[in-house]
Amino acid sequence: MLSESMLIEKIRSFFPAPAKVRKGIGDDAAVLPWDKRHELLLTVDAIVDGVDFHLKQTRPEAVGWKALAINLSDIAAMGGLPLYALVSLGIPAGFSYAWIRRFYAGMKKLAGKFRVAVVGGDLTRSKVFFASVTVAGRVEKHKLVLRDSAKAGDSIFVTGRLGRSILEKHLKFTPRLREARFLVERFKIHAMMDLSDGLMRDLAILMKESKKGACVFTEDIPVSREALRARKRNISPLRSALCDGEDFELVFTASPGEAKKILALKHGLLGTPLSCIGRVKKSPGIVFQRSEKDTEKLRWPWKGYEHF
Amino acid sequence: MLSESMLIEKIRSFFPAPAKVRKGIGDDAAVLPWDKRHELLLTVDAIVDGVDFHLKQTRPEAVGWKALAINLSDIAAMGGLPLYALVSLGIPAGFSYAWIRRFYAGMKKLAGKFRVAVVGGDLTRSKVFFASVTVAGRVEKHKLVLRDSAKAGDSIFVTGRLGRSILEKHLKFTPRLREARFLVERFKIHAMMDLSDGLMRDLAILMKESKKGACVFTEDIPVSREALRARKRNISPLRSALCDGEDFELVFTASPGEAKKILALKHGLLGTPLSCIGRVKKSPGIVFQRSEKDTEKLRWPWKGYEHF
Repeated sequence: MLSESMLIEKIRSFFPAPAKVRKGIGDDAAVLPWDKRHELLLTVDAIVDGVDFHLKQTRPEAVGWKALAINLSDIAAMGGLPLYALVSLGIPAGFSYAWIRRFYAGMKKLAGKFRVAVVGGDLTRSKVFFASVTVAGRVEKHKLVLRDSAKAGDSIFVTGRLGRSILEKHLKFTPRLREARFLVERFKIHAMMDLSDGLMRDLAILMKESKKGACVFTEDIPVSREALRARKRNISPLRSALCDGEDFELVFTASPGEAKKILALKHGLLGTPLSCIGRVKKSPGIVFQRSEKDTEKLRWPWKGYEHF
Repeated sequence: MLSESMLIEKIRSFFPAPAKVRKGIGDDAAVLPWDKRHELLLTVDAIVDGVDFHLKQTRPEAVGWKALAINLSDIAAMGGLPLYALVSLGIPAGFSYAWIRRFYAGMKKLAGKFRVAVVGGDLTRSKVFFASVTVAGRVEKHKLVLRDSAKAGDSIFVTGRLGRSILEKHLKFTPRLREARFLVERFKIHAMMDLSDGLMRDLAILMKESKKGACVFTEDIPVSREALRARKRNISPLRSALCDGEDFELVFTASPGEAKKILALKHGLLGTPLSCIGRVKKSPGIVFQRSEKDTEKLRWPWKGYEHF
């Protein structure tokens, strides 16, 4: 069995993007020609009972919200605006209509917040409940941000606080659409992606796509209160912040000049915390130091994450 | 538990299409604004192990082919051209890479045939294998065909021969994209949809959307050889042709004047058989008679299909 990232690489080489496709497999969303000024964005993400949530424990509204939110997060990561959603459900026999209605109610609440129209879908019998949601969006060509354009010397930023998913926060998050649009409308952002598999894994992907590396400042990582509380259970808060999946925050890079302007914002990003957590390096790999000034390199203190 | 069609009606009333959406839930694909001359088409369809195919019996290439084909059939039914596909897979733990590669090989073969680019997707763990495929396509505004525009007096046509799915033909079908484009480029087609749940159910949906009814000529139904062979097993061939799902042929209507021109085509529809099987009536419901000339009404001879 291959790892997921290796499997994606295989699939990517199996389906090379034709010339008309600006970006195929390998970013948060596919980027396709729309008109002279815009690109069409398409993304799909599925959640499955027993893996991404538990039917018996999770409110149906939260499942519906999350099924859409993870896709809006992908559109945000491209600098785009979501427009339409399609909802493909696998429904076990005898499933209650009340549950499905509440699922859609949760989705509708989020869709309304960002003016996304649910325009289609599919219902299929399935032994396991799943929801695969497709979102189509749009982005102005000059506002599009890909994963592959980080430059050596760029400052690396993250939104929000990390390691929140421990306490099931991952079900209730608000995708960073407003923050992403604010960024791409006012600043030159070089590269961006959303955090679904944890900062370390996702930053490694961002750097790999950009053919660069990163130096991470451990003291500048915005550790969430939830991660700090986990200390009681003998879990390192920093490790939670670096490695926990499903934060759905944004990681992005900008030149030092732009970074200064971004850091001068008085209220963070529309009230959302913003942290400069590292710098893009020319050479591949991710290294750690305490802060920008303290340049002594740290060893990664935890086992099992050697592969980035 | 509601029936699927009732559930779709509920969902549809829950997500009314905003003004900018030409057609939301309730057709083969959603129809969305693209540019002055074109509409964007979006459709999604999922297939699930144990329901739509059986992992142990079905070649992975056939599963990949079908997962895309059912979506291309929806684009065909709108008169459109497919452009892009996104593939969302639910993969059980320990699933073999070889299987997945062969699945994508089957899909790639069909994608290549119709120049569809696979531009994205998602991989999720799931106890049950599923493939939910989204296809985006495009149609010229004046070639778009919806379900809701059949006119009283229209001739009703179907492509191909019906009741083929008995012998697992449903895994290998070629979506009627070329036939549909041929039709919309040369004739004025009033209403069209693809046959996934059997002619009787789907024709009832087409008529309901158009607020019309239909008179079906039983002697003109193109019964497939596969359905004829089923006679040995005491299954009525006509019933198979009328009620079996997964034929993925097209049903469409056109005015009597256009119908004459369509029937004058020398080689059917690019070699595909074409049959005029009935007429659109003003009053709702579906009735049967032997042929256009023999106007004596027949009683539906089989139980269990009273609901159309």
